[in-house]
Amino acid sequence: MATMTTLAAAAVPTLSAAETGPPTQPVRLRLSCQDGVAPGKNLNEKLDFLEALGVEGVEWGGGGLPRRVDEIQKAFQGRKLKTSAICAGFGGCLISEQEPERQKAVASIKEILTAAGALGAAGMIVVPAFNGQTKLSHWEARELLVKLLAELGEHAQKAGTSVLLEPLNRGESQFLRQVADAAEICKDSKSEGACVMGDFWHMTWEEPNDMAAFLAAGKRLRHVHMASRKTRNLPGEDAGDNYVNGFQGLKFIGYGDFVSFECGCRGDRKTSLTAAVKLLRDQWAMA
Amino acid sequence: MATMTTLAAAAVPTLSAAETGPPTQPVRLRLSCQDGVAPGKNLNEKLDFLEALGVEGVEWGGGGLPRRVDEIQKAFQGRKLKTSAICAGFGGCLISEQEPERQKAVASIKEILTAAGALGAAGMIVVPAFNGQTKLSHWEARELLVKLLAELGEHAQKAGTSVLLEPLNRGESQFLRQVADAAEICKDSKSEGACVMGDFWHMTWEEPNDMAAFLAAGKRLRHVHMASRKTRNLPGEDAGDNYVNGFQGLKFIGYGDFVSFECGCRGDRKTSLTAAVKLLRDQWAMA
Repeated sequence: MATMTTLAAAAVPTLSAAETGPPTQPVRLRLSCQDGVAPGKNLNEKLDFLEALGVEGVEWGGGGLPRRVDEIQKAFQGRKLKTSAICAGFGGCLISEQEPERQKAVASIKEILTAAGALGAAGMIVVPAFNGQTKLSHWEARELLVKLLAELGEHAQKAGTSVLLEPLNRGESQFLRQVADAAEICKDSKSEGACVMGDFWHMTWEEPNDMAAFLAAGKRLRHVHMASRKTRNLPGEDAGDNYVNGFQGLKFIGYGDFVSFECGCRGDRKTSLTAAVKLLRDQWAMA
Repeated sequence: MATMTTLAAAAVPTLSAAETGPPTQPVRLRLSCQDGVAPGKNLNEKLDFLEALGVEGVEWGGGGLPRRVDEIQKAFQGRKLKTSAICAGFGGCLISEQEPERQKAVASIKEILTAAGALGAAGMIVVPAFNGQTKLSHWEARELLVKLLAELGEHAQKAGTSVLLEPLNRGESQFLRQVADAAEICKDSKSEGACVMGDFWHMTWEEPNDMAAFLAAGKRLRHVHMASRKTRNLPGEDAGDNYVNGFQGLKFIGYGDFVSFECGCRGDRKTSLTAAVKLLRDQWAMA
């Protein structure tokens, strides 16, 4: 369309080529697993199992994390495992129309970010709003999120970690569904501590192309969630589970962070997780 | 996030790898120009100039197009030029909250699509709503657009062309700003006649990565607009104009349609357009 208008309040444009580029070195598949997904009667059994599989990272829930930092650091003593990322666990809602809800979200996210940084996590996963959590219009909510992300991103950077916006499928969040949208929101915040993650299960429903989604995020992509593509169980538990196109994207951007299991399990947990690790390694090699 | 919900009313997922793939054959840069951008005192002079430059396509405005089909076909007699795409020119608004506005849009888009098909255009460019044209919520507007696109896409296919959703920058349309969003809306419509275009000038402001945007569209990308990246004049009229990352995307998806000038001009039209064609060919070769 030829209409010429001024770009009121738009960010200074940066050329896309500067945001991402071709891979500079071979990229390795670094697997991670949420503690709740790993089999085992206690944390040590879970960690033993993951290490034996060659999994290198563990993803923890953010609820109560500030009180768990010592426990986790002790559990990792003598192990090669690292904390990959922290999954949510905060209160309130960042883009609620109600000020107290927003304040609750900002305060609890900052608390968890501090713990996430202490554990060396790449980032803390944040969903701006689930369906029903905000009455703001789409654009009002977006502008508010950009503003709050600048503040949270700065806190995250100081803590040595990042805020990870997670796009969800429309059944959970109509507000943020695509990785490119999340990446542009982060860009608008002008904070390098504002980053994104991609979850292959949500992406099945919302992304026209997995590789494109990861390229859109580029250097801001700091975490990836894995699940089977239709029922959200372990990869391989749905017929035809395919991650090759997405893995091509991860290789293209030189992704160096973790790919982490967040999913249910239909079969025997030990068997299915072992098979899932093999499937991902095989598809990574094909990508 | 681990919340498990059913995907109410979501489309059956298709794996992304099936939507696009690596290039199957070398892709050629096929240039096009809007008739209003070409220099010349009359249509024949414009077409002579474009042909001499090696431009292969002409993009026409959709306003009054049904009455211009014969004129355009005659002007092309004995020439190699083809119609690339048709730019808007319809009445009403597809996602207005007012039924008569929507009906006006559907009826006039169908009329122009029929003419576009007769001229062999890849598609007709449609902006769902400029800012201020609809009072519907973002999601209501999206659901309405998906429904109307199914109908318009079917009409377009029968006419031998396509509807091309155009994402704009936020200053013109907060509703549709990213190519991946447009591509997913088309996918949801389940119509192969529902396609997208990308405009490098709008993309400067809204896309985190040009290549990613084109990969997201894949086979649904049927038209591209060119302009300088900051002031929307001819490519090269802004310092640092760079399209290489986007051209890498076009090559990757095996793009076979036109790349068309839609822009103003700051200098002498003949000189600037000649320089722009050279710049695009040079950057295409680099991509």
